[in-house]
Amino acid sequence: MGFTSVQKIRFDDVDGAGIVYYPKYFHLCHAAFEDFFDTAASISYPGLIRERRLGFPTVAVESSFTAPLAYGDVAVVELSVKQVGRTSVTFAYRIWRRRDGAPCFQAEVVTVLIDLDSQRPVPIPPELRAILEQYLSS
Amino acid sequence: MGFTSVQKIRFDDVDGAGIVYYPKYFHLCHAAFEDFFDTAASISYPGLIRERRLGFPTVAVESSFTAPLAYGDVAVVELSVKQVGRTSVTFAYRIWRRRDGAPCFQAEVVTVLIDLDSQRPVPIPPELRAILEQYLSS
Amino acid sequence: MGFTSVQKIRFDDVDGAGIVYYPKYFHLCHAAFEDFFDTAASISYPGLIRERRLGFPTVAVESSFTAPLAYGDVAVVELSVKQVGRTSVTFAYRIWRRRDGAPCFQAEVVTVLIDLDSQRPVPIPPELRAILEQYLSS
Amino acid sequence: MGFTSVQKIRFDDVDGAGIVYYPKYFHLCHAAFEDFFDTAASISYPGLIRERRLGFPTVAVESSFTAPLAYGDVAVVELSVKQVGRTSVTFAYRIWRRRDGAPCFQAEVVTVLIDLDSQRPVPIPPELRAILEQYLSS
Repeated sequence: MGFTSVQKIRFDDVDGAGIVYYPKYFHLCHAAFEDFFDTAASISYPGLIRERRLGFPTVAVESSFTAPLAYGDVAVVELSVKQVGRTSVTFAYRIWRRRDGAPCFQAEVVTVLIDLDSQRPVPIPPELRAILEQYLSS
Repeated sequence: MGFTSVQKIRFDDVDGAGIVYYPKYFHLCHAAFEDFFDTAASISYPGLIRERRLGFPTVAVESSFTAPLAYGDVAVVELSVKQVGRTSVTFAYRIWRRRDGAPCFQAEVVTVLIDLDSQRPVPIPPELRAILEQYLSS
Repeated sequence: MGFTSVQKIRFDDVDGAGIVYYPKYFHLCHAAFEDFFDTAASISYPGLIRERRLGFPTVAVESSFTAPLAYGDVAVVELSVKQVGRTSVTFAYRIWRRRDGAPCFQAEVVTVLIDLDSQRPVPIPPELRAILEQYLSS
Repeated sequence: MGFTSVQKIRFDDVDGAGIVYYPKYFHLCHAAFEDFFDTAASISYPGLIRERRLGFPTVAVESSFTAPLAYGDVAVVELSVKQVGRTSVTFAYRIWRRRDGAPCFQAEVVTVLIDLDSQRPVPIPPELRAILEQYLSS
């Protein structure tokens, strides 16, 4: 159903308590989001920004952390789409620890498509909407 | 009421769309959390981790983003305490843009005090509870 | 002689071996470079980039690491100017550990002033040259 | 000859001037170093640290930057071994921009194998030396 991105936990991802620094979970999700565009969309996210001057800034996040990731772990990040509105898209993320399948994290991330020059919301283009709807989580 | 930490947005804090990368907002909050311990508590957060082997991992986050921060901005980060449970503390954060006072971000971050060796929750020590309660937001 | 910037080592600055991740030393230096502009120059570095469309990309680095920094340490970063050429500036950095004065790091960082639109080197403006020359290390 | 690691430039890798923040080049190299262990050595770098309590802190870096990387670029990072001493290893790195093959960066990074508990240098184990020597650059 969802799109999966597999990412190594790197040497600098940990904090002073020896586990992955919690803001880095959102970075893992953003990398999955970029990989999703690279793989599933007709334009990459850098291309969307540079060529079409569109972007998906985050407007709200709700997340819970259920198990730690450590250096040397591999994170399995699953992206799915919870809702596609007129100008907004809510992404759902789940992260598992590959070595034992433990669920580590889940989040809902609300984004809004904006014109980067005017900073105003714009409707999701039909082509992109069609792709996003293939990843609807329910 | 709250504790305030003022932080420069640095050259590497921005993303490919030219504004602060959204996971960095949580980093700004964590830096304020560390500054809070340095200033208001009887032990620094590094000291808590190293000497007492205690830490406050994040278990849940709820946040909204209301205005962007750019390179050269100064972030005013306010920490307050929403709730002190037996083993958990919910922190509330608000971030303003110093140049115009625009509210950029707010979050509630639920943390649990754990023994880093056993990874088990432990009761908030009375001394720390007393300090935290001075910053209760309501 | 030099310009000094004092910076806390943060929770996310360490690596999987428990000491500051070595690329972060260069980040500490860049933060000192930005603080130098904020304090000593007539324009901030963000202002230089945005208003004059000038920047100082790094073209060469030579550095040595002599003692580790850990979470909870405070880094004392000293910036001085080794050489001001027609379009280039060589900065020298030294980092000490505040708790014991141990020298942790030194570097020479060669930068070139470029026009960000043409990406071509441009002569150091006389006003900026005068400021930089006040920080010449010898 | 060398070992190659291909890495996407991510949304947060750029700086306020719109190109990859220079300390991130060292991060790209460290990721290649970790990938090298994952692929070519008999133990991963996290395993070396955790199980054998050995690590390769960096003691010196010499590098030059010859072309910028931007968001959306793919970095081709080549690792080779310049010298294997009794306790030290000098790695050489080169980074190319995949889209046009432009050489962006080269560095020599001197590391020393240390026992993480005693923080003392230790001789390179014969098995690891044999692997490293397969990647000698000349």
